[in-house]
Amino acid sequence: MKTIKDSVHDHIEVEGVARALFDTPAVQRLRRIKQLGTAHLVYPSANHTRFEHSLGVYHLACEALDHLGIRGKQAERVRAAAILHDVGHCPYSHSIEGVVHRHTGKYHDDVHELLADSEVGDVLRDHGHNPDTVADLIAGDGKLGQLVSGELDVDRMDYLVRDAHHTGVPYGTIDHSRLVRELTLIDGELVLGEGNVPTAESLLLARALMNPTVYNHHVTRIARGLLQQASERLLEVSDVTAERLRRMDDYDLLVALRETPETEEYARRLSDRDLYKRAVWAEMADVPESVIDADYETLREYEADIAAAAQVEPGEVIVEVLDRPSMTESESRVIVNGEIRRLDEQSALVAALQHVQREQWRLGVYAPAEATEAVGHAAERVLGLETDGALVNDVRTTGTRTTLDQF
Amino acid sequence: MKTIKDSVHDHIEVEGVARALFDTPAVQRLRRIKQLGTAHLVYPSANHTRFEHSLGVYHLACEALDHLGIRGKQAERVRAAAILHDVGHCPYSHSIEGVVHRHTGKYHDDVHELLADSEVGDVLRDHGHNPDTVADLIAGDGKLGQLVSGELDVDRMDYLVRDAHHTGVPYGTIDHSRLVRELTLIDGELVLGEGNVPTAESLLLARALMNPTVYNHHVTRIARGLLQQASERLLEVSDVTAERLRRMDDYDLLVALRETPETEEYARRLSDRDLYKRAVWAEMADVPESVIDADYETLREYEADIAAAAQVEPGEVIVEVLDRPSMTESESRVIVNGEIRRLDEQSALVAALQHVQREQWRLGVYAPAEATEAVGHAAERVLGLETDGALVNDVRTTGTRTTLDQF
Amino acid sequence: MKTIKDSVHDHIEVEGVARALFDTPAVQRLRRIKQLGTAHLVYPSANHTRFEHSLGVYHLACEALDHLGIRGKQAERVRAAAILHDVGHCPYSHSIEGVVHRHTGKYHDDVHELLADSEVGDVLRDHGHNPDTVADLIAGDGKLGQLVSGELDVDRMDYLVRDAHHTGVPYGTIDHSRLVRELTLIDGELVLGEGNVPTAESLLLARALMNPTVYNHHVTRIARGLLQQASERLLEVSDVTAERLRRMDDYDLLVALRETPETEEYARRLSDRDLYKRAVWAEMADVPESVIDADYETLREYEADIAAAAQVEPGEVIVEVLDRPSMTESESRVIVNGEIRRLDEQSALVAALQHVQREQWRLGVYAPAEATEAVGHAAERVLGLETDGALVNDVRTTGTRTTLDQF
Amino acid sequence: MKTIKDSVHDHIEVEGVARALFDTPAVQRLRRIKQLGTAHLVYPSANHTRFEHSLGVYHLACEALDHLGIRGKQAERVRAAAILHDVGHCPYSHSIEGVVHRHTGKYHDDVHELLADSEVGDVLRDHGHNPDTVADLIAGDGKLGQLVSGELDVDRMDYLVRDAHHTGVPYGTIDHSRLVRELTLIDGELVLGEGNVPTAESLLLARALMNPTVYNHHVTRIARGLLQQASERLLEVSDVTAERLRRMDDYDLLVALRETPETEEYARRLSDRDLYKRAVWAEMADVPESVIDADYETLREYEADIAAAAQVEPGEVIVEVLDRPSMTESESRVIVNGEIRRLDEQSALVAALQHVQREQWRLGVYAPAEATEAVGHAAERVLGLETDGALVNDVRTTGTRTTLDQF
Repeated sequence: MKTIKDSVHDHIEVEGVARALFDTPAVQRLRRIKQLGTAHLVYPSANHTRFEHSLGVYHLACEALDHLGIRGKQAERVRAAAILHDVGHCPYSHSIEGVVHRHTGKYHDDVHELLADSEVGDVLRDHGHNPDTVADLIAGDGKLGQLVSGELDVDRMDYLVRDAHHTGVPYGTIDHSRLVRELTLIDGELVLGEGNVPTAESLLLARALMNPTVYNHHVTRIARGLLQQASERLLEVSDVTAERLRRMDDYDLLVALRETPETEEYARRLSDRDLYKRAVWAEMADVPESVIDADYETLREYEADIAAAAQVEPGEVIVEVLDRPSMTESESRVIVNGEIRRLDEQSALVAALQHVQREQWRLGVYAPAEATEAVGHAAERVLGLETDGALVNDVRTTGTRTTLDQF
Repeated sequence: MKTIKDSVHDHIEVEGVARALFDTPAVQRLRRIKQLGTAHLVYPSANHTRFEHSLGVYHLACEALDHLGIRGKQAERVRAAAILHDVGHCPYSHSIEGVVHRHTGKYHDDVHELLADSEVGDVLRDHGHNPDTVADLIAGDGKLGQLVSGELDVDRMDYLVRDAHHTGVPYGTIDHSRLVRELTLIDGELVLGEGNVPTAESLLLARALMNPTVYNHHVTRIARGLLQQASERLLEVSDVTAERLRRMDDYDLLVALRETPETEEYARRLSDRDLYKRAVWAEMADVPESVIDADYETLREYEADIAAAAQVEPGEVIVEVLDRPSMTESESRVIVNGEIRRLDEQSALVAALQHVQREQWRLGVYAPAEATEAVGHAAERVLGLETDGALVNDVRTTGTRTTLDQF
Repeated sequence: MKTIKDSVHDHIEVEGVARALFDTPAVQRLRRIKQLGTAHLVYPSANHTRFEHSLGVYHLACEALDHLGIRGKQAERVRAAAILHDVGHCPYSHSIEGVVHRHTGKYHDDVHELLADSEVGDVLRDHGHNPDTVADLIAGDGKLGQLVSGELDVDRMDYLVRDAHHTGVPYGTIDHSRLVRELTLIDGELVLGEGNVPTAESLLLARALMNPTVYNHHVTRIARGLLQQASERLLEVSDVTAERLRRMDDYDLLVALRETPETEEYARRLSDRDLYKRAVWAEMADVPESVIDADYETLREYEADIAAAAQVEPGEVIVEVLDRPSMTESESRVIVNGEIRRLDEQSALVAALQHVQREQWRLGVYAPAEATEAVGHAAERVLGLETDGALVNDVRTTGTRTTLDQF
Repeated sequence: MKTIKDSVHDHIEVEGVARALFDTPAVQRLRRIKQLGTAHLVYPSANHTRFEHSLGVYHLACEALDHLGIRGKQAERVRAAAILHDVGHCPYSHSIEGVVHRHTGKYHDDVHELLADSEVGDVLRDHGHNPDTVADLIAGDGKLGQLVSGELDVDRMDYLVRDAHHTGVPYGTIDHSRLVRELTLIDGELVLGEGNVPTAESLLLARALMNPTVYNHHVTRIARGLLQQASERLLEVSDVTAERLRRMDDYDLLVALRETPETEEYARRLSDRDLYKRAVWAEMADVPESVIDADYETLREYEADIAAAAQVEPGEVIVEVLDRPSMTESESRVIVNGEIRRLDEQSALVAALQHVQREQWRLGVYAPAEATEAVGHAAERVLGLETDGALVNDVRTTGTRTTLDQF
């Protein structure tokens, strides 16, 4: 048995198949993929990786399984899924997941091939596990798949606490050890035991507060936009394939961008933190439905049109539209007075979260600092933003004052 | 200048009038008043006192004043108010504040006489301050009174973080140092600067989560009910006056209860943590309006009637009704896109908090463990609870399973 | 099974005999005994109690037993000893332990009678344990007694971390979870496994740093001196017996001192933090051997002589002599290159600790602020301190500047 | 003014020249240099960078200057030096500093040219500072150079606390905010005020405990050895110059090693954490003086001789010899009873530290796992280690069991 020291959960013990899995190149690669992609440009301490997160998810899975009384091969399989749940991530985690998905059809949790074909598959088979079954768990399938990927999964419990520890933003500080203790399986469904409405609420509220502050901070988003544009360009102009891109680590990608003349400037901007600025930052009510729902190609056309109208180079305009809010996660179940109830039916706070996502939603248009004025005006016309002049000015020229956007 | 080490804010510097105030018996007395009254019977580490809290509030007031650019005598007065804001507390803080108020007409923030007549008044006058003006600030009056007692006051910022540190419940972990930095005075009103909707939300959500988990945990409430009944009895049977009770510390009160034959059993129950149990724990929808709004005397009559019906001793039934929810606090103001907006108009989460208070509200009827069955049935009839039998059974006999109620 | 939330170790589970023991009045009493006696007068947050500490020691004992592979009745007995190891403490913990010992012959870990005669004994016997065997473990006897009271015991691991958490002084922050994991039993002796020289060193160094900063801070010592003198006086003039004193809690003792005219002034000084000041603070080299080794009565005569010489009231002089340094604790054993070695033979740091204790040793003479000048001069003569005038002046009139001594 | 959130010091404010310096490419580059080089292979959370450390050093410098009452241009210059003190670091910090020094003659704190020639120099000159003067401060010259690089510098205060936070090893948790407050300048020398012997001791002890546990953990050392050998090879076989190597970041170097056939295997071993193992791990007493003092070329010859004797490939043996212990740092000065005293004369603990360094010193010989047996025997003969067979076996084949060496 081996013991690893984690800055969040302290000592974590690994043995058997778990230990062998952590030793595979596919899992070791996660040491070089930042958990929060570009958020370290806002929060300089946020350099934690998918590797330590996977270790934490494994640890919480062990604890949850223990409390649920699940042991043996079935538990071992869930623990394997916990360790492996992020091996499908591309460099910079979610930042360029959309780019990879467009070209390969795969999201990070689609890992059937990956598990089957790599050394990971050998380790699993050597220990009597079918790689496909583990990949199913990672995709959230099956009764215990919920524990790895579901409304009350240990993935979220770990990342909220870990991201809080490393950014210094306290909103993610949930009571993970209580959550893990209070999980129960009733009729094949994961629910939280009696008296845990606040425990469940805190999990969802933590995410609602971390979203605008960390995960979708506008500087995180701008850098993400640059990285996406750069990655698309890299696929166009170099011999890097989408499959290769998917399996790079952060190191490979940044150096590839540096070494390719067409993307070198993106690499410089990201390295020197010489980012684009917001030209538009618009609330949902002010954005036409057609823009909110525009597909990838349409957005690229908008960018070209705006660039032309503002007389800047193509590539100097980024239009970024977040997905429409969806709230499957508030379907967590919790026992109240002996009955299983859906959390959003029990909790006014959770019921409000769908509105919150709408409040927090913003359309972003980004451009080099010296071009935001021109690009902002052009974007207003091209996108048909329903604003009075004031809004454009408020958003564009004064911006929202946010104290943490400088680094 | 002197430096004091605090477990929450680390080093805190005091000098001049602040130092002299901390040295007065009235402030030193706060060392012997637990911040959370009876909550240490649920969370054994929650033994922190009003003294260290006052130190923390002073510290945050210093920081806020600094960021607001307020200096000189005006700032000194606010700092004095921060130090003194809790000197009016009776033993066990809010636990018996209702008892003291009924007999003296005074709540803990009504301190004009206290400041004027004690050594505190001398210190203030020696440094050129009018004790009455400081007492006004403590009551929340005046432009800067909001900083000491208002929707965004430093009192709340300190206690949430401190209570989290000492209970181990993480929900109070707000970003207090950001809050303090982001306060601005606009037209004499304290508002949070642009980009701080989540900062403000987190403050209110922290309280919404701490309420059921800590401040109104049912064991905290049961012990509080015993302490209230014991204090009333002490006033009746001993020569302790309400004014004397108000100025006791925790030590005086517990020993007085021990030394008085009629209250000795209460002291024993509180000391040995041999508390009453819930006989009824009913949601607002199941309780008649007349009970919710009943005055003190009526509640005592209910208790007598229930005791008679259940054939237990008077004093073996406690009926505890929380105040109806009120939500003045969500009127915090925050700047969004350059405009001052009310937080509850801007934030769906905060708007939901009024509903949350209704969800969390519970009527409690408590009795010795062996009598909860009989008392529960009697209470159902006497109070006219609109329940089917199931509810009474659910609540009474099984109770809600709460893992932290044993100590 | 029940779960209790601790601010240091998070969730702690108790069941069976452990749960029953925590529910006894003897253990619940520890909620009203401050872990650090008078240190809260230096570190205002240090209000933690022997109860939460006992909970922590129980928790670490569970973990250590688990790692050692010890189960069943034997383990249950050690856990019981961990819970009960401090029930023999008198009010204010070690502060007046000397007083109690002089009058009763008992230290806090001499609990055979206590366990046998109280409800604790009933609980133990009901679960098939002999109270005497448990009392033996508390005294450190037997192979597993070392775990409760020995060089590497869980008692020390808990208190160092807990005292750091509550004072805010970081020096006690040891790696307790590594210590607990690395314990091994070899030939009936508790040793630390290979590679743990720094782990063991850190435990002893933590104490060496906490001693002058917290446990023997001069303000802690002065208040302790006042409390000792007050307790002796209480035994003389009131009907409080030494046996009764031993079983009081902090609340009883403070109120008893208040209600007894002869000790009322001590209670006031302690309550208002209006303490004596240092008149002399002398290093070991400057103090005659006869003074260092003087017995209790001789010290009281010195006090009387100094008071007479300085023309102050008896009771206005306190002479406090710490025990001569002893270092049994550096005999911890640790495996180095496969051999069991004594830590003080392996580690230069630990070998240096005996010298450290000499360096830190100070003789203190304390008196009311206005009398320190006169008392200092008188003490110099009466005690025959080998000083040049300078030393006395340095120590007495300027004192050592310590930033944390004001509260 | 801008505010940055740091996971260790919370909010840090930057403005003016400081803000401009943080925005330079030379400082932004530090975001891509791990603070602890290869230690993240032992402690997976140790991914913090020189950038956040520089931010922390800047913050502590601000606080120290404030307490020292130093303001204006002189203070601004020290703050600039704090920000820039690590811009001279090569990739992986100290790991390959020796390699770079051999080829360029420069250590990381030799930055006169770097500051003069880059954008950093422009920023400094624009704000009226001479880059050379700032470089002098970074080298520790001048009265205030001690604050940036000296026995009591803010560099060490930050890294100990930060490394503890990110590794999870608590030994670095010193009281940095007390240290910063207690610094005084007396006759141009930085000393700690009265009552701070434990404060100063804790700083040195923290390092003594962090050394074997983190900085010189054998896995850190083995990976460092691989990285050094790989870098030397890269300089030999590729067109990467030593000057270019010095200015790479971690990303550049790892990818360069990957892309160069002769170093590709090193990159794979480091990426997959498929490291060499210890073949020899010998205490100082067992190693001939001539080996301890051997120069670079001699050590390479030893490696070749051992490889030949063990019949393994050249490059499959690493001989690593740490420098002989030196202890300039215990010359910190502290005031005791009004006199300035050297810490090592006052403190038995600090005086013991020189011995500690000897105790902790180890010669390491590393080789691929399957070759440690053969390489160990060969090394014993070639290096003339004075061991009985037992030692070689203990060290080589069983090794010291260290629980944290797996990841």
